[in-house]
Amino acid sequence: MTLDAADLARRDRAHIIHPYLPGSATERVVMTEGSGCRLTDSEGRGYLDATGGLWLAQVGHGRAELADVAHEQMSRLEYFTSFWEFSNDRAIELATRLAALAPDPLNHVYFTSGGSEGNEAAIKMARYYHHRRGDTDRTWILARSKAYHGIGYGGGSATGFPLYHEGFAPMMPHVSHLTPPWPYRTELYGGQDPTDFLIRELEERIAEIGPGNIAAMIGEPIMGVGGMLVPPADYWPRVREVLDRHGILLVFDEVVTAYGRMGEWFGAQYFGVTPDIIVTAKGITSGYVPLGALLVGDHVAEVLLRDHGFPMGYTYNGHPVATAVALANLDIIEKEGLLARAKTIGATLHAELEAQLGDLPIVGEIRSVGMMLAVELVADRDTRAPLPLNPDRMPHDVIRRETGVIVRDSAHSLVLSPPLIMTDTEAKEVASALRGVLARTEPTGEIRPA
Amino acid sequence: MTLDAADLARRDRAHIIHPYLPGSATERVVMTEGSGCRLTDSEGRGYLDATGGLWLAQVGHGRAELADVAHEQMSRLEYFTSFWEFSNDRAIELATRLAALAPDPLNHVYFTSGGSEGNEAAIKMARYYHHRRGDTDRTWILARSKAYHGIGYGGGSATGFPLYHEGFAPMMPHVSHLTPPWPYRTELYGGQDPTDFLIRELEERIAEIGPGNIAAMIGEPIMGVGGMLVPPADYWPRVREVLDRHGILLVFDEVVTAYGRMGEWFGAQYFGVTPDIIVTAKGITSGYVPLGALLVGDHVAEVLLRDHGFPMGYTYNGHPVATAVALANLDIIEKEGLLARAKTIGATLHAELEAQLGDLPIVGEIRSVGMMLAVELVADRDTRAPLPLNPDRMPHDVIRRETGVIVRDSAHSLVLSPPLIMTDTEAKEVASALRGVLARTEPTGEIRPA
Repeated sequence: MTLDAADLARRDRAHIIHPYLPGSATERVVMTEGSGCRLTDSEGRGYLDATGGLWLAQVGHGRAELADVAHEQMSRLEYFTSFWEFSNDRAIELATRLAALAPDPLNHVYFTSGGSEGNEAAIKMARYYHHRRGDTDRTWILARSKAYHGIGYGGGSATGFPLYHEGFAPMMPHVSHLTPPWPYRTELYGGQDPTDFLIRELEERIAEIGPGNIAAMIGEPIMGVGGMLVPPADYWPRVREVLDRHGILLVFDEVVTAYGRMGEWFGAQYFGVTPDIIVTAKGITSGYVPLGALLVGDHVAEVLLRDHGFPMGYTYNGHPVATAVALANLDIIEKEGLLARAKTIGATLHAELEAQLGDLPIVGEIRSVGMMLAVELVADRDTRAPLPLNPDRMPHDVIRRETGVIVRDSAHSLVLSPPLIMTDTEAKEVASALRGVLARTEPTGEIRPA
Repeated sequence: MTLDAADLARRDRAHIIHPYLPGSATERVVMTEGSGCRLTDSEGRGYLDATGGLWLAQVGHGRAELADVAHEQMSRLEYFTSFWEFSNDRAIELATRLAALAPDPLNHVYFTSGGSEGNEAAIKMARYYHHRRGDTDRTWILARSKAYHGIGYGGGSATGFPLYHEGFAPMMPHVSHLTPPWPYRTELYGGQDPTDFLIRELEERIAEIGPGNIAAMIGEPIMGVGGMLVPPADYWPRVREVLDRHGILLVFDEVVTAYGRMGEWFGAQYFGVTPDIIVTAKGITSGYVPLGALLVGDHVAEVLLRDHGFPMGYTYNGHPVATAVALANLDIIEKEGLLARAKTIGATLHAELEAQLGDLPIVGEIRSVGMMLAVELVADRDTRAPLPLNPDRMPHDVIRRETGVIVRDSAHSLVLSPPLIMTDTEAKEVASALRGVLARTEPTGEIRPA
């Protein structure tokens, strides 16, 4: 079936419920081709992808070698279950490889098809771990405001935005949200050192709930949807120390941060802490096939595997095609040196953004680690008041419409997480596109016509 | 990397947490190849797949045409997000096609990567629908004991087995479980007509909770994990009538039953009822790539699309490769007449099971619709007491070890859901394999050596 652009848009409006898109919106951008950092839509228009899809296209679009691997595996064995004693060779190879990449003692792998599934599993694992050890009161989960842990009822309850709870309640009980580490927002910490403030709050919250009632703390090493919030270097080590003292597990939600995004395999390595469980997805296959993997510490796995084993499983657990593509994707990341590349091109992109946007009064802060970058928009640099946003004419929409460069809005920041293979020329193009629109953006949020 | 069988098994034990597998279990069956209904493991042993993986391999294993489609799409556009105004041509084509296949007025599609994600979304949609209409107290979800709605915290709360809750609590609140329709278990209904009993219970439960507090009832048309429990023909129409009278939505979890498994596109059509939302996954791609789709009624979609739209989305929503493979999979189902085939081969398999097992005292009931079949095992045909099971030597494990035929245990039934392309000869082979082991199974559950 070959449909023209108008027909595609019409059918889309008639039949698809898109996440976060009102029925009143008529605009559609129907992608049909991708290669490297470039995309083409049904009208033949080109785009430069500075979001990596949804922060996952580590190796870029349209890699023929991944299509070849998928074809070969799908022809040989497309799928069989990995429940019970059943397994497949590709899942075993990938688990072995992930165990070698992950920090010790995270030597056990539990497969999912994505981040939301992974966070459901992580919360269940944490509670189950304590339960099976007889610590049956340890059911509380500590999370943070502005956290994003997917949209299952478990992870979604840990997610720290009202939008993700309103109309869906009652959510899963026993979740408590702490203040996020967001050094730019000094007002959150009443003039104190952010880490000191956050550690004191953590200690107080633990005392309030009772350490013997808490299963785990879950957190993104760098908060993505919250706006690429980079914590102070001493935050995670000090959090880990407090949790250890109280027998509370640490779950890192690395759905965004793993597999090179931060210039390391895992954000855990960047911050020098070892969580008990790491949740991953996205970059594990660069999005070519849905897949997720939890990396689980020996001490946790030993408990989960007691008696009848861990009683939850997703259908596509250990999917042969997904795991085969993941192996080939990790090969590309290694062979092309994309961990190192994330650091260098990330630094280049950061410098370009600084050069192009640093003088604009509505740009409050430009921050980054590797290829996670944010430009925080303010109405006033002194008060740091957030830039008002007009939902019908948001800066990222205007940038995309005018220039074809795709960035994302996250809580008053423009966030970028391009493919790690981005070129220097493309980085310059991204920064120029942002400059072109943000230079015309008033402190009221209005964007002047070009 | 080419690993021998022993090495694969060793690495698997060292690194993979399999669902429902104790750490003490050393046996592994590592599948490496599949074609039609046949599988081969790393030791070169052949298997006959009478489970369809996890009840999803509608078109059978190793179909080259699906591998070709995946390759082509992955080379052209492997992935871009479908959040907001972004879309892709394959997702649009699939949504259009699903809307045409589904009963009216289910004309809207919301994509996921699987059944668990789908049930989380369905519960959220149902609550959100009422919330946005101002019916903010409608938060309760009616489900049934022995239901399986996946393992997210939302769907998992609706799942009706203690195993899926123990150690994971607190689950999502406001779920109430009703008695399942299981006509063979007459004791559940105190001598009454099962439907009369169940409808009275439903009415009483609604009165107890208050109709104005109930968002939806969720149910599998035929309960799968519960043991292929086929309700009386008047059950779903009468349930629908009661729910309509009280403004309660009906969600069909058709993760197992859709796309030909019952000889129809959807179980809704088989039972002649129209739910407000149908959750599908599995058979939509025959498992070649993870994918799920919710089919949503116009009246529900209209509310979800108000204001800022429906605020939840999974990363792989509308995945181009998954939707392309789904289209090709639906093509195969149509071209090869697999809906009709499910009825004829299902009837053949049922007749073979009757012929081979009908005389065995431990076989209580053989039941089926299309290619969903169950053999319920009892210690005594008169009392219908369930057959005691020895977890170290379950009938389905012995059948697989001795004959290579793979069936599954579900709550004291052996359940079968083979690829819809199964041949008559293969159906005979399955029935003979079951006979070989069940004829040696004592009412104590012990299986005599061959």
